[in-house]
Parts: sequence; structure tokens; C-alpha cells
Amino acid sequence: MAIAEKPPPAYATTLAEIESAAKTLKGHVVRTPLIAAPKLSALTGAEIFIKYENLQFTNSFKDRGAYLKLDSLSGDERKRGVIAISAGNHAQAVAYHASRLGIPALIVMPEGTPFVKVGNTEALGAEVVLAGETIAESRETADIIAAERNLTFVHPYDDPLVITGQGTVGVEMLADQPDLDMIVVPVGGGGLIAGCAVAAKALKPGIEIIGVEAEYFPSMHHGVRDEEPVCGGQTLAEGIAVKKVGDLTLPIVRDLVSDIILVDEAAIERAICTLLTVQKTMSEGAGASGLAAISKEPDRFQGRKIGLVLTGGNIDPRMLASIVVRGLEYEEKIVSLRLNITDQPGVLGTIASMLGKAGANILEVSHRRTFLDVPAKGATLDIVIETKDAAHAAKVMDKMREAGFEVERRSGADGDFGAY
Amino acid sequence: MAIAEKPPPAYATTLAEIESAAKTLKGHVVRTPLIAAPKLSALTGAEIFIKYENLQFTNSFKDRGAYLKLDSLSGDERKRGVIAISAGNHAQAVAYHASRLGIPALIVMPEGTPFVKVGNTEALGAEVVLAGETIAESRETADIIAAERNLTFVHPYDDPLVITGQGTVGVEMLADQPDLDMIVVPVGGGGLIAGCAVAAKALKPGIEIIGVEAEYFPSMHHGVRDEEPVCGGQTLAEGIAVKKVGDLTLPIVRDLVSDIILVDEAAIERAICTLLTVQKTMSEGAGASGLAAISKEPDRFQGRKIGLVLTGGNIDPRMLASIVVRGLEYEEKIVSLRLNITDQPGVLGTIASMLGKAGANILEVSHRRTFLDVPAKGATLDIVIETKDAAHAAKVMDKMREAGFEVERRSGADGDFGAY
Repeated sequence: MAIAEKPPPAYATTLAEIESAAKTLKGHVVRTPLIAAPKLSALTGAEIFIKYENLQFTNSFKDRGAYLKLDSLSGDERKRGVIAISAGNHAQAVAYHASRLGIPALIVMPEGTPFVKVGNTEALGAEVVLAGETIAESRETADIIAAERNLTFVHPYDDPLVITGQGTVGVEMLADQPDLDMIVVPVGGGGLIAGCAVAAKALKPGIEIIGVEAEYFPSMHHGVRDEEPVCGGQTLAEGIAVKKVGDLTLPIVRDLVSDIILVDEAAIERAICTLLTVQKTMSEGAGASGLAAISKEPDRFQGRKIGLVLTGGNIDPRMLASIVVRGLEYEEKIVSLRLNITDQPGVLGTIASMLGKAGANILEVSHRRTFLDVPAKGATLDIVIETKDAAHAAKVMDKMREAGFEVERRSGADGDFGAY
Repeated sequence: MAIAEKPPPAYATTLAEIESAAKTLKGHVVRTPLIAAPKLSALTGAEIFIKYENLQFTNSFKDRGAYLKLDSLSGDERKRGVIAISAGNHAQAVAYHASRLGIPALIVMPEGTPFVKVGNTEALGAEVVLAGETIAESRETADIIAAERNLTFVHPYDDPLVITGQGTVGVEMLADQPDLDMIVVPVGGGGLIAGCAVAAKALKPGIEIIGVEAEYFPSMHHGVRDEEPVCGGQTLAEGIAVKKVGDLTLPIVRDLVSDIILVDEAAIERAICTLLTVQKTMSEGAGASGLAAISKEPDRFQGRKIGLVLTGGNIDPRMLASIVVRGLEYEEKIVSLRLNITDQPGVLGTIASMLGKAGANILEVSHRRTFLDVPAKGATLDIVIETKDAAHAAKVMDKMREAGFEVERRSGADGDFGAY
């Protein structure tokens, strides 16, 4: 394959190195499939193939770069151990592969990192140190410990071996589906997209590489334009919430990536929900951002063969449960109603019967008559119903109004599910 | 391949027919992957490979048999149309492929079938008729309509072509991983396991085929023993809740399947949750029953290479949300506590601070003092907290007791999530 390989030597990796890495990874990381997603294709008008990186052992593509880096260490370096800063997928990947290779791993996470993340990483055999309020502050502590103990630092993206490891995703996608027109890749620090772009562009120069970032963290979007990004905000796409892209990844992305699409939180949430309920696969926010981008700019992807990298599936189960139920509310298959009723015996029965006749399934009832926002002789009745769809929901409300009830729609998610 | 093929001619299908069917299906159903599941392997001690039939267009293996049957119809039969009885995956598969092939499809479902199922099937282009309280009663209506309109009946399992179509699952599994020791297959009417068994046993006589049924519907388990099963009960595994197995499938299963394992509802629920949170894939109850069987009899699967058919992913999203949260409660990562407290200002604050110091995250608080089960001067405080694990939960409760609070654990799921 050396003939097709023409990236300038300045890049941090080459197709030859990535292809060699693919051999090194064999038997150590999962050779994930690229599978047609006909239902998503029908929904979007693009011909979508999903690369299921959520099927890796630690459920993200990070296994690739982490393994390649760890595998490259000398016997001495292995004995001393490695250090990494991450509360997320990189931490788990380093912890898991270090443990498999018998390399001590120390992971520094910001204070206040959720239990689940600390626990998952410890369970994979790493020592976890909580330090600093931000990743930058964690970095200071990590540098001190690394110097004291002479540990090798495993960077999540700005390391040639890590970029090379992630690039194997691109090689595998084109091996499985050589006629892809585009590859859509979520972008955090840029390791994955840089590696994929070097590989894919060398194998098939006509292929288009599109990056995706959360609106709250447009680091690469601004970076390739030499603009300073304004980053911050609570994003569902934690995995790509990176303020500073890599020095090694930026030039590759600038040269080889066509565009970076920014997606908002609502689009990410809907994409997570669609991947789960339509495609039956669990994606974290970052992993779903590619689908969010396709939904945002359908014309751009229409009729083209798209390789979509589902980068990871590590989402908090409670968040997921919440997103699923909010998805039903979004589609108006779950509707919250509020009625002001007279506080007389039998009224609740009348309403419940009416809803039953209208084909609505009652999920929750809350009946209050002790609060000041209710007339003294009345009561507030909050009802959550299940309906077929928005049209059915509207019909149900019409029927109640015809029967003389004051009904209003309660906005937003139900309290118990609206936890974020 | 004809040399290896030795099933008695009495069987409804042969390896040669199944291999030919695999060619017919190409481009019409998804060639699903069989992928190593290293994390599930680490959990169970078996070497598990998952066959992702939930990635089919209608999200179950039923696409295979339905397409093969529809594809076999004459021009005249296509014009007149087809009829099927099903509220589930078979309905969607017939509706989808009939619609693609321009064949009118009528699906008869029992009255009281949930909206979602009716809607999903209609959305795929079929006409849905609700008739009868049970599948048996639906069958009567279907027979009348079929006779009136001269429609071809598409049986969900007791049809040679349907069995042949489902058998392509087995051919693909052994093509991808020829060294499988066992294939574990959920059993409803037996179409899938019969087809897979004929194919796999012909390709590799030493392979072991294991079936799985829900305890509530042990039809095949009893059938192969010539016993009359007692069926019934609310099962999560609706897809395999079949009272009468096929006349064509039973003899194949009796001869070629080593055993049928029965799994209970709790095991199915946990398997759904594990597939989602660990393996990042969405399975319906039937689809998860294979993993439930491996968890139930770990010794039997220990160290062996298992092909696990994840038959489908069509689970009600609300049910899924509930199962995920119940899973956290099962692992004691979400714990419901009830305290009887004195109704004095500041007590809630004291408790909340104490929980915070103990590292527990408060998710819900409900504070009641108007009910008869509370002392007149006291109040009941229900708190739902998030903890690291069971040990942490116990430690938190100890701390509260040390501080003089009466704390008890509320059993079961929280009201809002415990909907089934």
C-alpha cells in the first residue's frame, strides 16, 4: 500500500504506520463492525453505515490508541508505570490495557468526578487520584507525580502513537465498505479524526471527512480558522468537551477535513434517543453527535454513503433512562396534563373513564388541593398519559374540553425524569 | 457443501436450502455481525460472541424468514396479498418486506395490543385488524379473512421457508466464527432454533445447540419430552411467549438440540440490563434470554466459545427506562430510604448535609406529615440516594443511625420507575 501513501512527512502519522498498528492491535482490541443502518438511512435520506466502537471492551475507540501506546513502551518504562488524566473513556482504556499488560497505571481525575467513573476505572485495575477542580489543575498534580515516580504520560490525543492507534478505525471502515463517500467523526482533541483522515485520504483521496463538535466546545471548529474558541457549558457530549485541541492533530484536520459541524444539546439528546430506540444501540453524547450532524444538515448527506463513527457508549444509565422518557414526551407519546377541577367526589373517576374511552393510557396521577395556586374549593389534577402520537394527544385534550374541563399542557419533562 | 449435509429428508429444511436462502436474502436483509463480547466473557467465564439480529431493519431475525417466504410467492399470490397474525416482530417483518415487494399485507393482532405495536406495523405499510382477545381467537378471524380474500398465510414459524430463512443465522455465525463450541438460541415456536440447528449441525456435527425459554412458557422444553406444558404469566420475553411450538420445528429440536434451559423473569430483566449497560446494545426480553441462561448455568458454558443470538431489540422504551433504573437499585447504586423524623425546622437540612458528607448524592426527597401512619408530631421522610455500591449504601445508613435517626430501607423500585 506504500504507493498510495502521500501525506506530507510533517504529519504525526502515516497510512503505513496506521496499517501496521492495525496488525499490532489484532487480538487486543475488538475488530468492530461497520454495519448498514437501513432504518436510520430511511429516516435521514443518507445511506448510513455505523462503525460500532461502543463494542470495544471499555466501550469506546480509546482502547486503540491506549493499547498502541502501552505496547510501545520499553521493559523499564512498563515497570515504572504510566499516568493519564481523564475522567472518561481514555482513563478506562489506559486502566484496562495497562492492567492486561501488567503495567501500573495511575489516573488523575478532577475532584467531584462522579462515583461511577472513579469506580469503573478502579475496577479496571488503575489507581485513581482525585486532584484539581478542572482538567488543567489535574494536569499540574499529574506532572508532579509523573516527575516524582518517573511515569510515562499517556496523552489522550496529542501523541503520534495515540493518533496512529485511533486511525485504525478509518482503515477498517474502508476495508469493510470501500465505496464510502464520507466519514463523519466526533471531534474532541482530534486524535480520532486526525488518524482516520490520514488513513482514509491516503486510501481514497476523494473521500470527504467531516468532524462534529458540540456547540459548547467548538475548539477544532475555531482552531482550523485560527480563532480562539469560547468553550463551556453543560454538554451531554462530555467525551468531546475539550477546550484545547492537539498541536499534532490540528494541522492534519486543517488540511484533510472538509468541515466541522457544530451541534446543539437538543440535537445530541435526540440522536442518543434515536440510536437507542431505532438502531438499538447505546451511545454516549459524543458518540451520537455524528447522527446529530446528519440530522442538522440533511442536504449535505442526502444520497451519499456515510460512515458514521459511533465513538462510545459510556452514558450514565440514569441519564439514559431520562433521555428515553423525554424522547417519548418529545414525540408526544407521553403527555403531561394539568386540570383545575372542582373538588367533588367522582370527578377523578369521570376523567379517568373519559381518558380510557379516548384510548389514552394513564401513567401517573397527582391530585392536590392544599396549595395556594388552586381555588379554595377546587383542586389541581396532574395526569400523565400515554398516547399514540401528537395528533392523538390533541384529540384527547379536545374531548376533555368538550366535556367542560379546563385542561392545559404541562411543559417539559416530568419531574422524576427531568433530572438533568 | 453437499457432502457434509446429512439431515434426514423428513426435516422441513436442509443445509443446502439454507445456504441457497442466504444468497436470496443478500441485499434484502442485513448481514448482521457476530462480534466478540469480551466484557460479557469476563463476567460469565464463557467466551461469548453475539449475533446482533437487533440490527435488522425491523430489529429482529424475523426479517429473514418473512422475506424468504414473500420472495417465494407467485405473481398471482403477490397480487392477492398476505396475512399474518402477530403483535410483535413477525408482524413488522411481514409488513416491511411485503411493502418493499409491493405485496398488500394484512396483520391481525389481538384486541388490546399496545398502541406502539399497532402503530409500528401500520407505519411499515400493513393494514392492521384488531380481533380476538388471544392469538388463538385472532387466528379464527384471520382464517375467515384469508379465505374471503384468498390471501397467503405467513406463519411465524411452522413453515419450511420461514425455518429456512431463520436458519441463515446459523450459517452466518459459523462462517464468521467456525470454532464456536455452542450456539444459544431463544425459542418461541422454534423456527429460529430449528433452522440454525439444521445448518450448524450439518456444517459442524460436534457443535452443541442450546435453546432457551421463559419459565412461564416452557412449550418446547416440555414438547421434546412429550409433556403438556403449563403456559402463562406476564413475561418480559413476549417474543418467545408461545404456547404451541411448530409441528415442523419440534422434531428438529428433539433430534438436534441438546437442551432447553428455562429462565425466570428476574434473570431476563437483569440480562436486558446487562446487555444495555455493559454491552451497549438494546435487547428485548426474548433476545436477552440467552444471556440469562448462561448466567443461570455458568459451569455449563465455562471456557467454551458460545455464539449467542440476540434475536431482537424491540422493547417498549418506558419498560427499558424502568429496567435500567431498577438495575441500579438491584446493584444498590440507587437506594430508597425512609426515616421517621421529628417535625422540627432544620432536620431535613441536617440529614441532607450528613448524606453529602457521607458521599451520597440525593436524587429525590419526599417529606410527608399529614398521614396517619406518622406520629402526630413527626414526619416521614423518603429519600432516594445514589451510592457507589451496596457497601457504601450500608455505610451511609450506619452513619445516619449513629446520629440517632431511625432509618429503614424501602423495598423494591421507586414508584415512578416500578411501572411493571
